[in-house]
Amino acid sequence: MKIFIVGLGLMGSSYAEKLHDVGHDVFGYDIQKDAILKGREEGYIAFDSDLSKLMTSDLIILALYANDNIEFIRTHQHLFKSNALLTDISGVKHTVVNQIEAILRPDVDFVSHHPMAGRAKKGFQSKDKTMFIQSNAILIQTKRGKEYNYALLSNLLIDLGFKRVITMTPEAHDQAIAYTSQLTHAIASSLMNGLDEVTVGTTGDSFKELTRIANINETLWTNLFLENKELLVDAMESFQAQLEQLKQAIIHNDEKNIQDILKKGRIKRESFEKNT
Amino acid sequence: MKIFIVGLGLMGSSYAEKLHDVGHDVFGYDIQKDAILKGREEGYIAFDSDLSKLMTSDLIILALYANDNIEFIRTHQHLFKSNALLTDISGVKHTVVNQIEAILRPDVDFVSHHPMAGRAKKGFQSKDKTMFIQSNAILIQTKRGKEYNYALLSNLLIDLGFKRVITMTPEAHDQAIAYTSQLTHAIASSLMNGLDEVTVGTTGDSFKELTRIANINETLWTNLFLENKELLVDAMESFQAQLEQLKQAIIHNDEKNIQDILKKGRIKRESFEKNT
Repeated sequence: MKIFIVGLGLMGSSYAEKLHDVGHDVFGYDIQKDAILKGREEGYIAFDSDLSKLMTSDLIILALYANDNIEFIRTHQHLFKSNALLTDISGVKHTVVNQIEAILRPDVDFVSHHPMAGRAKKGFQSKDKTMFIQSNAILIQTKRGKEYNYALLSNLLIDLGFKRVITMTPEAHDQAIAYTSQLTHAIASSLMNGLDEVTVGTTGDSFKELTRIANINETLWTNLFLENKELLVDAMESFQAQLEQLKQAIIHNDEKNIQDILKKGRIKRESFEKNT
Repeated sequence: MKIFIVGLGLMGSSYAEKLHDVGHDVFGYDIQKDAILKGREEGYIAFDSDLSKLMTSDLIILALYANDNIEFIRTHQHLFKSNALLTDISGVKHTVVNQIEAILRPDVDFVSHHPMAGRAKKGFQSKDKTMFIQSNAILIQTKRGKEYNYALLSNLLIDLGFKRVITMTPEAHDQAIAYTSQLTHAIASSLMNGLDEVTVGTTGDSFKELTRIANINETLWTNLFLENKELLVDAMESFQAQLEQLKQAIIHNDEKNIQDILKKGRIKRESFEKNT
């Protein structure tokens, strides 16, 4: 299949290299010419990548920041092949999906998706084609998505290495992600920022683990936070209420209540381990 | 050296097996006879372990819950060898160290320590002699600790596999641990408890990582939380203030402020990675 990837950052480049490996013709585009040159040099991006290749591509993957994806469609969709499939990898869906559905040419199909994988580092120089192995991917239901295109995209994600592909509405996706992904990044960053001074040698695995994702691309995540603002604030408040409840139990020496809270967390975590 | 380990749970058994491996004579005691029997069967605990072996042991390691350690000293210190070294592995130090110093026979030396390593599971059946590899250990300054006994214990910890042994006062230890260990466990538990429902397939690495330690021994950690109550509540409030500040920036669409907060966290985390 001819696949055109827009945006050769960490994610776009990793898609490009792996999709090339499994036998597709991959074209890539980025305003940073370095990324294209490097991709050509290493062989995973076709030598003659340029925007005219949109005209013959069966699948277009948008891997820019959400607003730039919309802008790319506005500016270049006259080049899209009729009946091509468009997809995007943005981390927040309800706004992006609505906007794309509103402006996209009617003869181009659209199925959104979200790869639940990432790395702390950014840019094509950090690409890693093994990044998707054992990860989850979410297909996002759209108004126009044709059934065979959900199947096509799902198979492609399995080829990339994802272990499970599930389908959700944009709204259900954004609610789940607010808690399991955006809140966790907000916590990691706050935990790191609240540390007065790092005393070398006093940290165990737990602090290292809980702050790994504080190493964040702040531009990307600020966008994601603001795009999903209401649901993220709800998620933060739900977590804040839990932590405050535990703190109050500690303040009041309520041994029984602390044990119950910790036990509930342990049981939920054990069940989570079994089910994921 | 003859080493007597009191309490053959996860930690005590792991110490026993590894110390046996590096050539010490290890005696072990536990009110659960299963643990001793199993240790004898597998060969890492001397066959004739019983409390009378305290009389010839050069090092006594207390690996019970903090209050049980105190009780063990009260009841059995008449059996301790004169000039033996006593140590304990409790997770909170200022109260325990004070209590031990107040009651311990004057002819027995005492240096406390804290192994910054652990596992989610408990009990001797979960023992793992590789647990300490690449971890940090903290030696705790006591009033009576003789210099050569700090050296002895430090060398023993390096033999166990720890990569770094640092020395702190009980108070400095408890303040550091409140933030980097107890707060992180409180966060993991609260994060797990605040999740309404686990939608299989919607979680990425971050949620898994931040909740791993919610799989907790709730009896042990309730004790640890209450023993270090004031410092832990301070740590929780310091973290709560950071998270609230980020939430307010999100609520007010303050893009610049959100970026600054995330950037600060990223830079602190990068520096932490370099220094630990």
